[in-house]
Amino acid sequence: MKLGEIARKLNCTLQGPADLEISGVSGIEEASETELTFVSNPQYLPKLKTTRAAAVILSKGDKAPIPALISDNPYLTFAQAVELFYSPPTPIPGIHPTASLALSACVGENASIGANVAIGAGVRLGKNALLYPNVTIYPHAQIGDDFIAHSNSVVREYCQIGNRVILQNGAVIGSDGFGFAPRSDGSFYKIVQSGIVVIEDDVEIGANTCIDRASIGETRIAAGTKLDNLVQIGHGCRIGRHTIIAAQTGVAGSTQVGNQVVLAGQVGIAGHLKIGDRVIVTAQSGVGHSIEDGKKVSGSPEMDSTVWKKNYLLMQQFPELVRTLKQVKKDLDELKQKLESA
Amino acid sequence: MKLGEIARKLNCTLQGPADLEISGVSGIEEASETELTFVSNPQYLPKLKTTRAAAVILSKGDKAPIPALISDNPYLTFAQAVELFYSPPTPIPGIHPTASLALSACVGENASIGANVAIGAGVRLGKNALLYPNVTIYPHAQIGDDFIAHSNSVVREYCQIGNRVILQNGAVIGSDGFGFAPRSDGSFYKIVQSGIVVIEDDVEIGANTCIDRASIGETRIAAGTKLDNLVQIGHGCRIGRHTIIAAQTGVAGSTQVGNQVVLAGQVGIAGHLKIGDRVIVTAQSGVGHSIEDGKKVSGSPEMDSTVWKKNYLLMQQFPELVRTLKQVKKDLDELKQKLESA
Amino acid sequence: MKLGEIARKLNCTLQGPADLEISGVSGIEEASETELTFVSNPQYLPKLKTTRAAAVILSKGDKAPIPALISDNPYLTFAQAVELFYSPPTPIPGIHPTASLALSACVGENASIGANVAIGAGVRLGKNALLYPNVTIYPHAQIGDDFIAHSNSVVREYCQIGNRVILQNGAVIGSDGFGFAPRSDGSFYKIVQSGIVVIEDDVEIGANTCIDRASIGETRIAAGTKLDNLVQIGHGCRIGRHTIIAAQTGVAGSTQVGNQVVLAGQVGIAGHLKIGDRVIVTAQSGVGHSIEDGKKVSGSPEMDSTVWKKNYLLMQQFPELVRTLKQVKKDLDELKQKLESA
Repeated sequence: MKLGEIARKLNCTLQGPADLEISGVSGIEEASETELTFVSNPQYLPKLKTTRAAAVILSKGDKAPIPALISDNPYLTFAQAVELFYSPPTPIPGIHPTASLALSACVGENASIGANVAIGAGVRLGKNALLYPNVTIYPHAQIGDDFIAHSNSVVREYCQIGNRVILQNGAVIGSDGFGFAPRSDGSFYKIVQSGIVVIEDDVEIGANTCIDRASIGETRIAAGTKLDNLVQIGHGCRIGRHTIIAAQTGVAGSTQVGNQVVLAGQVGIAGHLKIGDRVIVTAQSGVGHSIEDGKKVSGSPEMDSTVWKKNYLLMQQFPELVRTLKQVKKDLDELKQKLESA
Repeated sequence: MKLGEIARKLNCTLQGPADLEISGVSGIEEASETELTFVSNPQYLPKLKTTRAAAVILSKGDKAPIPALISDNPYLTFAQAVELFYSPPTPIPGIHPTASLALSACVGENASIGANVAIGAGVRLGKNALLYPNVTIYPHAQIGDDFIAHSNSVVREYCQIGNRVILQNGAVIGSDGFGFAPRSDGSFYKIVQSGIVVIEDDVEIGANTCIDRASIGETRIAAGTKLDNLVQIGHGCRIGRHTIIAAQTGVAGSTQVGNQVVLAGQVGIAGHLKIGDRVIVTAQSGVGHSIEDGKKVSGSPEMDSTVWKKNYLLMQQFPELVRTLKQVKKDLDELKQKLESA
Repeated sequence: MKLGEIARKLNCTLQGPADLEISGVSGIEEASETELTFVSNPQYLPKLKTTRAAAVILSKGDKAPIPALISDNPYLTFAQAVELFYSPPTPIPGIHPTASLALSACVGENASIGANVAIGAGVRLGKNALLYPNVTIYPHAQIGDDFIAHSNSVVREYCQIGNRVILQNGAVIGSDGFGFAPRSDGSFYKIVQSGIVVIEDDVEIGANTCIDRASIGETRIAAGTKLDNLVQIGHGCRIGRHTIIAAQTGVAGSTQVGNQVVLAGQVGIAGHLKIGDRVIVTAQSGVGHSIEDGKKVSGSPEMDSTVWKKNYLLMQQFPELVRTLKQVKKDLDELKQKLESA
């Protein structure tokens, strides 16, 4: 594809020859002589001197030693450029003969329902649904348009899913929450998880991630939020809008997470807390208290990230500190003895 | 449903009007004017002054400003009350035409076997089995009565499962243990995992949780134990009775966990250890040593929870401590110099 | 089986009666009077005095108070001995009638394709493929010989898999990487994950483990590497040869892990790092920096394991240290006062 055509398709200003042939898109270090790359973080600008790339997507104002496409949002433009050069396999239209649909299930137009998909009674699926083989939709789930469910993902009974939601492989929406009432003999009585999961528009759920249904009421993932793989969301949680939850993070039951929050990988958050908007929790942190809007926390138990960093650096001095204290004690004792014997 | 009828069904003493109409059950803060709520922890009793709930489930002796159901175990009564107001979808009786059963498989009476379920040779399934679509039971698994297996759960070859066991979606019972013998060239030789998993009565296994089969012998989950989602149990472990394991916890191979233990979320336990009865391990702890009965531990590596808490509070003083030490050293040096020059 | 026959089959030197009847293989503490056990770690040699085992697999030079098989690699010999006494269920040859194969899919000779398996267009499967029920192979995946895929495992579009690869239940090869470009309104634009996963020969992937496809290019797991259950490998990672990754570990995107590395359980590794060959990361560590060949690290954030251990021991003295400092400060203040008033 010609660089000029790419510029036109992606609404970029072209700096350089329109007829430069581009074969694909790649990272700045991996790009070959016919590939397009991008710089969205100015700290990588120096790499433009050594890249082999044929052209680069840049912000307005950045100087390009090679042909460039100027964009307001180079990373977004890069994302769109990837699509120009990639063709995913075409979904097979229609319902595969091995799929099992309940008579009362209702599937919208233009669906692609793969082999061995099972859809229960009373299910409503919007238009353009793309269900890969071995997906299961339990009875009475209500699902919007443009739903993509990868193989082995599951939507449980009564759950509600908005438009343009994507479930990666093995994602579980609406498994039973972990709720048991102890009996006097030490055994546990299962609390029926009568609530549901609500997933709003434009949410993506990672592979083998589990979102538990509420005991009563609902567990909710608000619009635009993205969950990575192997994440656990406990029953009765509410995760806000445009929030990012990285892999292997767990949020215990009844916790509310705000909008535009970032939970990095392997974070744990205790139950019944309130995590404010725009909070950032760094990787492997353990959050045991509610957190105000806009804070950044680290550590387990968590503390302000700046404090945590300072403490961490002080910790490095710990062996030195022990030595100093021993010396001070020794000096003092000697001094006292000297004074007494004087 | 009338409050009097609920009292009768749940064996509670009624305090208030028997004909009060109740529409459902809810938490004390969320309950509407027609809902029943509960207080099992006395610290929430003050909330009874502000709740909108129509009535409350309480312990004998607690004072109720609103109509009440008096119970020996309010949380258990709440759990039972939820059931009065919730109807899960009715399982479809019989074997779905797309299910594949080996000729030598034996399924008990009153089964509901969903679409695309696969049951291998020599499998024995007790009565009232409820298998959702896309469940796989490998050859020669032996399973008791009242088994519930949610979609995409798997029971591997030869494993043994008791009565009233529940597998949430994607649970894996009997995957190969992680065992490899290093060869002199640095490569690994797979050790055939010839053992099984035994799951006793009344166990529930969470979504996408994995329980590895033993290399030799068995991995065992004893009666009444409940595992949350995304838990890992290594080969050859023995988990005791009425134990609770929260989400994303991992127990490495050959470790024995006692009865009535609580492992909170994201805990890790090393292999070949013995964790006593009634031990509590707090969230994100890493246990590297065996633990005696009744202990509560925290941290990674773990220590007594009281010590851990004290250390954690001392840590907060760490920057102050460094400043104090520097000042003391300075003072001492000045004092010495003064004395010398005197 | 006679001990002499076992010696012959496993190429061991026999010390003791060739006609001793052996009923199975077991651990040194569990072995019964008719079982064969092994000692590969010399620290367990004293247990030979109390074991009930009939015979033992030992290294040359170790002294055996009971009949013995002498081997260059007792642990490997043990692994092979297990196979002599275990018969896994025989795979059913052929393609199950409920399996769905695209017309353009190509399956090699001697395959066993289970119930409800779905194989997409353009897939190539080598010989001796063993696919358990409910496996899904997306279009255009290329897979070598002797492939074993357990129920609910998935291989996504275009991914490439070598020979003798094993996928445990629910393993996901090629789920979308976690990549989103932020838009000015705070919402996220999904970056098409156009790359693939390449899995080389002799790799085993644990149950419910997820390996994300690359955004561009590939995610690669090199030959002979073994991943345990519930592991997360981010997009664009490269994991080297003969590397061991224990359960619940996560490696963030674009990180390179070397050859013969050991990542213990619940480790987290940040993105864009380079972990050298033969590195060992102990359990629950959090790695935030690249690591040189041969290092052993612990802690979160990670440090040299020896330093970490020393720090950990010093930490135990922390309360004592605080007391000492307070005493020193008090002594010093008294001394100063005494001198001033003198």
